[in-house]
Amino acid sequence: MSSEKPILYSYYRSSCSWRVRTCLNWKGIDYEYCPVNVMEGAQNKEEYSEINPYEFVPTLKINGIVLSQSVAILEYLEEIRPEKPLLPKDPYKRALVRSLVQAIAGDIQPLQNLRPINFIESIGGDKKEWINYCIGVEKQLSKSSGKYCVGDEVTLADVVLLPQVYNATRFNIDMTKFPLIQRIANDLSELDAFKKANPQNQIDCPAEEKK
Amino acid sequence: MSSEKPILYSYYRSSCSWRVRTCLNWKGIDYEYCPVNVMEGAQNKEEYSEINPYEFVPTLKINGIVLSQSVAILEYLEEIRPEKPLLPKDPYKRALVRSLVQAIAGDIQPLQNLRPINFIESIGGDKKEWINYCIGVEKQLSKSSGKYCVGDEVTLADVVLLPQVYNATRFNIDMTKFPLIQRIANDLSELDAFKKANPQNQIDCPAEEKK
Repeated sequence: MSSEKPILYSYYRSSCSWRVRTCLNWKGIDYEYCPVNVMEGAQNKEEYSEINPYEFVPTLKINGIVLSQSVAILEYLEEIRPEKPLLPKDPYKRALVRSLVQAIAGDIQPLQNLRPINFIESIGGDKKEWINYCIGVEKQLSKSSGKYCVGDEVTLADVVLLPQVYNATRFNIDMTKFPLIQRIANDLSELDAFKKANPQNQIDCPAEEKK
Repeated sequence: MSSEKPILYSYYRSSCSWRVRTCLNWKGIDYEYCPVNVMEGAQNKEEYSEINPYEFVPTLKINGIVLSQSVAILEYLEEIRPEKPLLPKDPYKRALVRSLVQAIAGDIQPLQNLRPINFIESIGGDKKEWINYCIGVEKQLSKSSGKYCVGDEVTLADVVLLPQVYNATRFNIDMTKFPLIQRIANDLSELDAFKKANPQNQIDCPAEEKK
């Protein structure tokens, strides 16, 4: 690990940023928080698009390199900091974790990007689809979960789950239909690494949104 | 590896199935092909949803376990069959590969699921977004690519790229604006593992779609 402090380009409410914040906290990696106001289009400005070609948050500068795409960042952090692991050792359990990560990050998360949610919500489309995906995740959890998503240890699946549950609630999805998701999310929200990563605890969270 | 032949539940035109077919071919893993006709809703039938809670293709039965979600399957195959690797050894390069995988599988792929494409295409919405994501991938490739997406070796990024380019063309996205994507896709389509995984070479491809 280089001596320079990592910099996380983040937006407080971005679920993808939240994932990386949680992972950094979990692994005890101290970092500088650089807010990118995606509501004002800061991610599309040249100075940002030069470090992140996708013009999304988050971006992580670490060890002299620049990383984009949250799941790729999580896997990188797991590889360079295997202490306090977020992937099990067993290949099958690792696959279960990654399967949940992809279901949440690849299927559910894209549904809640701002444009589609505004657009499709008017016909009730995206909520229905969101709920379908949650049914899949709940079914998977009924087979794999213990205290957390896969067994009794916190994994990357938990890291991506909590922000999505938070957003589901924000978009008025009735999560009481998904008791396993709900129970695990509640337990996760009590853990320090997750608490510290909560949007409300970020420097760019407006005062009126802090409870 | 158990002596039982792996079974891949697949749909010939599914880009997620195509990814896994390519990886199995690349690693020389012989498998049985079990067609799931997603146009007729076979993925929603109970016998299938019991093995795949998300009711998507692909599903892979291998070594006595059942795996869902294509990227998780690719990572699993990489772990159990590290010969003919599809991830570089260097953590930064691995992150570059996974960043492209997530950009393509997590951002671009969800745009082309059947419901959204039919629905949003009428207002030109999804094509615009698709093109925006392609711009990001092209910019990333300008930094990372050699002969293939990341350097000169075939990686998981290439495995996910080719099916998406095929679908982009199918949905009339003008890919000539993305010369790097196009050039790499052309080179990939000449490789045996990719050729064999092409929809046209699957047993469930209708005769009229075969050239």
